[in-house]
Amino acid sequence: MSEQTTITSTDLIISQVISAWAAQNKTVTDFFNKQPDEAYLQPVAPGRNRAIYLLGHIIAANDMMLPMFFLGDSLYPELVADFLDTPDNPDTVMPSVAELKEKWTTLNTTLAGHFANMDAASWLARHNRVSPEDFAKEPHRNKLNVLINRTNHQTGHAGQLALMRF
Amino acid sequence: MSEQTTITSTDLIISQVISAWAAQNKTVTDFFNKQPDEAYLQPVAPGRNRAIYLLGHIIAANDMMLPMFFLGDSLYPELVADFLDTPDNPDTVMPSVAELKEKWTTLNTTLAGHFANMDAASWLARHNRVSPEDFAKEPHRNKLNVLINRTNHQTGHAGQLALMRF
Repeated sequence: MSEQTTITSTDLIISQVISAWAAQNKTVTDFFNKQPDEAYLQPVAPGRNRAIYLLGHIIAANDMMLPMFFLGDSLYPELVADFLDTPDNPDTVMPSVAELKEKWTTLNTTLAGHFANMDAASWLARHNRVSPEDFAKEPHRNKLNVLINRTNHQTGHAGQLALMRF
Repeated sequence: MSEQTTITSTDLIISQVISAWAAQNKTVTDFFNKQPDEAYLQPVAPGRNRAIYLLGHIIAANDMMLPMFFLGDSLYPELVADFLDTPDNPDTVMPSVAELKEKWTTLNTTLAGHFANMDAASWLARHNRVSPEDFAKEPHRNKLNVLINRTNHQTGHAGQLALMRF
């Protein structure tokens, strides 16, 4: 196998992982785009998280990739307390659905732009929650692994959103 | 970058994709292992699929990987009609929970055994639903892509199972 071939294999697999992320991301976008704003205040199942919470929750979780990938600060740190650190709470004063949708779109565009510019070496480098010393022993703790985990995170919640009836 | 390094990168990423599969698989296993049999007859949300259906559904979907990967026939083709081709139907005569759990365990062991013996070239080769001619033009239609998609499939349903209350 030539070096050319093996480099292509690595790039191919990385592009497949990014495509899986983008596909799941689009599933969530499509769901939210077809719902009227009032639907967001319904829980996905009786007594469970409301759709508006899940939208903010997925934004906050995905937004973490920016600092984790050394790409700057999170865009929306103000969402962490209410959407990531705590469960859905009816007393929380939430942003409007329109604001959250705008954040969702802006974040996705920002992440897609960064992902398009990252090469294989960058994807396979450490993220900021693992020290260089630990990373030397555990090379799977790279940025690509974070993307795989975030893909599964949003996919699990997309499965819950799919249960809603309108 | 030496050839040694690039081959290692490819193997590393493939192992990460397999690990993500295994982790999501374990989430489903852990869920089912802690529920009493009668819980399987409850829907994950009012009017939605029952847990017993989702267990059979995920088995049938994952089982497809055996023929798709040229690893032989599916273990449980008898599940396809009731669990994959049709939605949950209360009139379906289903296998017992004990039988389904045994199939789940056997299938996971079988798949894990095969995955452990597949090298990078095999993961990046075509699956059986794409022709050699189409694969030459679309090299991302490989076995690893099927595994990524099956991981997301079971993750979405795991998210739904997590909504159940007991």
